Amino acid sequence: MAAARKILELDRPFEMRRGGALQGVQIAYETWGDPHVRDENTILIFTGLSPSAHAASSTEDPAPGWWEDMIGPGRPIDTGRYFVVCVNSLGSPFGSTSPASVNPLTGEPYRLTFPVLTVEDIARAGHEVALALGVKKAAAVVGPSLGGMTVLAYCALFPGAARSVISISAAARSAPFSIALRSLQREIIRRDPAWSDGAYTPDSMPVQGMRLARKLGMITYRSAREWAQRFGRERASVERKPGDPFGIDFEVESYLENHAAKFTGQFDPNCYLYLSRAMDLFDLADHGGSVREALASFTVEHALIMGVQTDLLFPIEQQQELAEGLQAGGRQVQFERLDSLQGHDSFLVDMDRFRPIIADFLHKL
Amino acid sequence: MAAARKILELDRPFEMRRGGALQGVQIAYETWGDPHVRDENTILIFTGLSPSAHAASSTEDPAPGWWEDMIGPGRPIDTGRYFVVCVNSLGSPFGSTSPASVNPLTGEPYRLTFPVLTVEDIARAGHEVALALGVKKAAAVVGPSLGGMTVLAYCALFPGAARSVISISAAARSAPFSIALRSLQREIIRRDPAWSDGAYTPDSMPVQGMRLARKLGMITYRSAREWAQRFGRERASVERKPGDPFGIDFEVESYLENHAAKFTGQFDPNCYLYLSRAMDLFDLADHGGSVREALASFTVEHALIMGVQTDLLFPIEQQQELAEGLQAGGRQVQFERLDSLQGHDSFLVDMDRFRPIIADFLHKL
Repeated sequence: MAAARKILELDRPFEMRRGGALQGVQIAYETWGDPHVRDENTILIFTGLSPSAHAASSTEDPAPGWWEDMIGPGRPIDTGRYFVVCVNSLGSPFGSTSPASVNPLTGEPYRLTFPVLTVEDIARAGHEVALALGVKKAAAVVGPSLGGMTVLAYCALFPGAARSVISISAAARSAPFSIALRSLQREIIRRDPAWSDGAYTPDSMPVQGMRLARKLGMITYRSAREWAQRFGRERASVERKPGDPFGIDFEVESYLENHAAKFTGQFDPNCYLYLSRAMDLFDLADHGGSVREALASFTVEHALIMGVQTDLLFPIEQQQELAEGLQAGGRQVQFERLDSLQGHDSFLVDMDRFRPIIADFLHKL
Repeated sequence: MAAARKILELDRPFEMRRGGALQGVQIAYETWGDPHVRDENTILIFTGLSPSAHAASSTEDPAPGWWEDMIGPGRPIDTGRYFVVCVNSLGSPFGSTSPASVNPLTGEPYRLTFPVLTVEDIARAGHEVALALGVKKAAAVVGPSLGGMTVLAYCALFPGAARSVISISAAARSAPFSIALRSLQREIIRRDPAWSDGAYTPDSMPVQGMRLARKLGMITYRSAREWAQRFGRERASVERKPGDPFGIDFEVESYLENHAAKFTGQFDPNCYLYLSRAMDLFDLADHGGSVREALASFTVEHALIMGVQTDLLFPIEQQQELAEGLQAGGRQVQFERLDSLQGHDSFLVDMDRFRPIIADFLHKL
């Protein structure tokens, strides 16, 4: 099923922003559309924390992608008009070099010897893919969540490398509330004895820690208002086992249980820890002294900043900060404050609201 | 230090709402003010999940209580005018019968053999204290959080037993978002191997589980806006240990770490599980068919409903629902929607906002 996946292998060391270097770095990506229209007609997509580069189906890999409704011929990110590239983040276990990869210098997986990962490293790995494809200036760099932070880093690090930027439910830097929640998720995983300081084996994964961290993620990715509508106080249909005073009572609990169980095993725990921490460490102010100055240095002509009112992790005020900073820097900015109920996850589910805005922005480019 | 604590011991079985009965139930409480003014001049206070009955200092126990600034001579809950009683919830480990108590029938601690605990049981235990003190009709029943749910249950169960009610940051029933968070806290404790199905000993407590659950509690008791103001992106002053890629980076992380460590060991884990679940199970609609009908059955003359805009767990819409329902039932309702930044915990910290409103309401009674 990974037939669509391409790999760029770098023949020089990849220096990490916070120190250390990786040898023989691989960066996985997928592409859609006609490669002959590349360079000024390329759209470069970065992902949230957990997806792979498989953003949409293709003839090589017909499985639906994580943004299937957004990408394709005639879709908002129109593969009839654009050459579309989605990059698997450095540090993610789906083909790019990550803590789960074997270190060529030792023959052993990196695990915790992987250097500190930053959002800037992810952006730079994506930039290597763009250059390798002959894309000096993309039509747009697009990303939601961690991917949104990554496109902001991309604009800060590579002036002139993009004509426009679409940042969705991202932030110039993480709020302490979001840092606290992610820090707790990481601690829950690290406190699982099976984590073994990162030296778990496929037979003894920190499954409980990953399950609990995932549940906390699911709770905070959505919104209280959506859950009130979806679940109310519906009782779970599963029968409580006799003598189990703390089993599942409510539908919302069985929803979390089922989905967390699905996720576990799909994502390498050490990779999760590194990517999660990269989000905490990101601070656009590192590129210019303040967030304002960093945004003022952007050279894109157009920016689309989208956010959701019910987002707990990347609150709408943080989207507004981005829009205002870019505007103050003289960029043409479209700021969209969406009423989606689904919180931070809205870009994955509330497609009817997101699609026309992105289609319209890219159409006018 | 527990010199102020009084204990009511019931000489008949205490039938629990969801089945089962407790023998020789003890209910701990403290009192302030002149007992001769009792009955129509008594204020009965129920607590949130974690505090004891020690709401304020007294000559018998000069340690500051959890609501020290609210209770005393000349304070909003004026012990010069009222006889004030604070009840330790049934199921709480601070003197009342709880899962940590010894079952007189077996000589062993109840642990998980304790029957399912409901908010109604807590209210009824408090009512026994009121009756034992000769208080047939309290001037006011007052409670924040779980205590707010308890005073709602008190009004539903005992018509005529209170002239007024003050409900603070409570709800007619828990929202699924809050249920999900509390359910996850309970699961985190139960997944700690040291929990041992509730059979831990003082030497082998589920300390990690309690620490992590407490951190999650602390994150959700406050608000993102407050934390942005308090912590920003301040780095922790502790030096990161070399070779520890997931230690503490930010001040907000070290704040959580210090406070969670303090809490652990102070609260019995099984009691925490029972009280937390009681909040999920509470539904005022059980008393009348719907929340509206239950509120319409209240006989109090006056109600003060207070809530906080930044409260994630008991959102302001739930306070409004209470106020509107009581108003529709013909009660005189004062509804206060506070701008406190400190989220659900505001009633413990934003005293300058809470005090004058409560003082004024009680003064006019």
